[in-house]
Amino acid sequence: MPHLQTALTDIHQAIDNHWEEQLDFLKEIGRFPSTLGNEQPLQSYIADYLKNTLDMEVDRFTPDVKKLSSHPGFSIPEHPYDGREVVAAVSKKHGSSGKSLLFQSHIDVVPPGSLRFWSTNPWDPVQRGNKLYGRGMQDMKSGASAMIFAYRAIREAGYEPDAPFMLQTVIEEECTGNGALAALDRGWNSDAVLIPEPFGMKASTSQVGVVWFRITVLGAGAHTERASEAVNAIEKSYKVIEALKSYEQMINSRERPEAYKHHPHPLNINIGTIQSGDWPSSVPAEAVIEGRAGLFPGQDPSEIKEELKAWVLEHVKDDEWLASHPPDIYFFGFHAEGAVVEEDSPMMQTLGRAHETIHEEALSFQPITATTDTRFYTLYYDTPATCYGPVGGNMHGGDEWVDLESVKQVTKVYAAFLADWCGLKKREGDGS
Amino acid sequence: MPHLQTALTDIHQAIDNHWEEQLDFLKEIGRFPSTLGNEQPLQSYIADYLKNTLDMEVDRFTPDVKKLSSHPGFSIPEHPYDGREVVAAVSKKHGSSGKSLLFQSHIDVVPPGSLRFWSTNPWDPVQRGNKLYGRGMQDMKSGASAMIFAYRAIREAGYEPDAPFMLQTVIEEECTGNGALAALDRGWNSDAVLIPEPFGMKASTSQVGVVWFRITVLGAGAHTERASEAVNAIEKSYKVIEALKSYEQMINSRERPEAYKHHPHPLNINIGTIQSGDWPSSVPAEAVIEGRAGLFPGQDPSEIKEELKAWVLEHVKDDEWLASHPPDIYFFGFHAEGAVVEEDSPMMQTLGRAHETIHEEALSFQPITATTDTRFYTLYYDTPATCYGPVGGNMHGGDEWVDLESVKQVTKVYAAFLADWCGLKKREGDGS
Repeated sequence: MPHLQTALTDIHQAIDNHWEEQLDFLKEIGRFPSTLGNEQPLQSYIADYLKNTLDMEVDRFTPDVKKLSSHPGFSIPEHPYDGREVVAAVSKKHGSSGKSLLFQSHIDVVPPGSLRFWSTNPWDPVQRGNKLYGRGMQDMKSGASAMIFAYRAIREAGYEPDAPFMLQTVIEEECTGNGALAALDRGWNSDAVLIPEPFGMKASTSQVGVVWFRITVLGAGAHTERASEAVNAIEKSYKVIEALKSYEQMINSRERPEAYKHHPHPLNINIGTIQSGDWPSSVPAEAVIEGRAGLFPGQDPSEIKEELKAWVLEHVKDDEWLASHPPDIYFFGFHAEGAVVEEDSPMMQTLGRAHETIHEEALSFQPITATTDTRFYTLYYDTPATCYGPVGGNMHGGDEWVDLESVKQVTKVYAAFLADWCGLKKREGDGS
Repeated sequence: MPHLQTALTDIHQAIDNHWEEQLDFLKEIGRFPSTLGNEQPLQSYIADYLKNTLDMEVDRFTPDVKKLSSHPGFSIPEHPYDGREVVAAVSKKHGSSGKSLLFQSHIDVVPPGSLRFWSTNPWDPVQRGNKLYGRGMQDMKSGASAMIFAYRAIREAGYEPDAPFMLQTVIEEECTGNGALAALDRGWNSDAVLIPEPFGMKASTSQVGVVWFRITVLGAGAHTERASEAVNAIEKSYKVIEALKSYEQMINSRERPEAYKHHPHPLNINIGTIQSGDWPSSVPAEAVIEGRAGLFPGQDPSEIKEELKAWVLEHVKDDEWLASHPPDIYFFGFHAEGAVVEEDSPMMQTLGRAHETIHEEALSFQPITATTDTRFYTLYYDTPATCYGPVGGNMHGGDEWVDLESVKQVTKVYAAFLADWCGLKKREGDGS
């Protein structure tokens, strides 16, 4: 095995040398509007890149709902998986002395929302100063570029990992996580997993669970002329939102796991969408609210669903109409448990050393208040997994951006982590 | 001139004789989904019917926005008028001793809304008992059938009006009224106007004015993880709705015109639609509310718009976010004044006599809390106009229906009104 420090100097130099290419790659993948159901063109682009530029063995496959449905981490999807592939790749010429490693990034992004909140086209990344703006630039295409270019730099510097090294781009991280689950179920696992979620250059320890709800509030539609006799579903839906806000207050005030003891507001109930009515002069007879509820590690999503439902129904009961026309509460998308990963595991120590090569200070840890795909590895496959990624802003909002300097630093940390965890061997036989 | 009572016996008999045909006609026009922008197929069907079955002279034309825009009754439309015709027709072989008359019906209908509120297809009228269910069956295709079959019965009984008799089907009654205004502007007017709005077999006297508003509420979008730092546009929009409800309370509590003195709730502010968000786990950055506000006759819609706007902005100011990010309040669609028509006019007396031929009791009058096309005739062309139509239910809601017995009675009242107002002459020269 080559001396790590010596190798890293060359590897980090390679990252600097290819920085413009990495930037072009990031902009290019940012131009794919890879929202729910529209992931495939980007997946094909990345699969080709991994195969042709990084000489990896690539596996493309779609999640098998029938097979996954009995898995405790499975969320019932709302969209079929035909033609929506997961991309998994492994280094071909790796050695076998070190420990295997998986870098996994989701390539699905949330919709851009109203264009009024964007200064430029969300699907055409634009650099201003050290920031790159575009949907997915923070969450998490910059992370995808970092993991891919970390491995590329190792090869450019004349090395291969001394253990199987895997890259994966998955779908549906933003709604079910079934992409990551399908890859695990297919056997794609390793001794440690790193996901480049852009929560800043800290390692995530705990994460919350998430369930999604869809609540249909009924009114009694009518012509405006009789508006005072009719029941307006929009007005009634506010009672439901109030109940959800009081539920949020309750769950944040009850006993918490250690990791969230001092967090100001770990569990968010987000009212994400509302749709109601189709004519200004008609009283709307139906309003549909969609949202997301957080839960603590250790809590069962099924129980939280029951609790939320019972709470809302109980807390709208003082409204006569809602008491006799209870809102329909349906759960879809995320059925995600919270998860915890140990701070003092070998993976974290190795990541810590890699972090120090760039930052000259100890790696810090953070519990997060969102869910990520790491839960599948830690909860169901006994595999340590953490998130560590670049710095950015406006994730899921308008003018999402990523800090480019942090992307470069993260790429270097990934390379150092890879080299340390897997070990390195000299590349052979391909003319270098 | 033939003896009215004798003639009416034959005419009403003709209505009974053609009742099944009228019912088929009503079902047929109910199958046209003549919502905003989709009026033309039905207009063509009706124009052909007026020309071929009733031998009328038919004029088809589209509203000329440029020409209408300086008219005080004009509302700025949101949709172009290309290929969206108004149909106006006049009897060819009428006499000239009586007074001219116009029956005018809109053929546009509001969207059906969620199908969960419909027991059967809204675009395929279904009879259950004496009720006919379908979108537009009450508002106001049954009225259209009544006015057309009233004239048909007069011809079938061997008569023609003794003055110009006009039938009109217009567009956009449900959003601007520009269809009716365009016909007037083109010269289609008469000595009296009856509109078969389905407010029951009473004659309308006053009606309120209407303005539509579209309010855009801004938030600050974000990933759920930072939901507590972000600003949720859906939650903020409730402050705006509350302000609108307090405005509604205020306008109903201030001094009213005589016609509305004892009405429990003459002016409705309807929250008709809300749209916000596109992802359960994103904090929505924008919510758009559309609605309708009523105003009293004598009030200027422009002033009401200013008042509503100022009220809302003032009443959301205690919210720090909304104070610094005031909602955008825009007015579109209806810019309609309220209007009053005299109860003791010759038109009302004639309608009263016609009503008595069927109901054997005096015609009663009602102020209404919606707007109708009658405003254009009374306010800007000094022409008496009223609404009198069938009985129905769930107008603008699901399972809209009309009472078929009332449709037949209304058809007979229209025929009696037509005969009395225009006078009758024997039909000549077409083989009868």
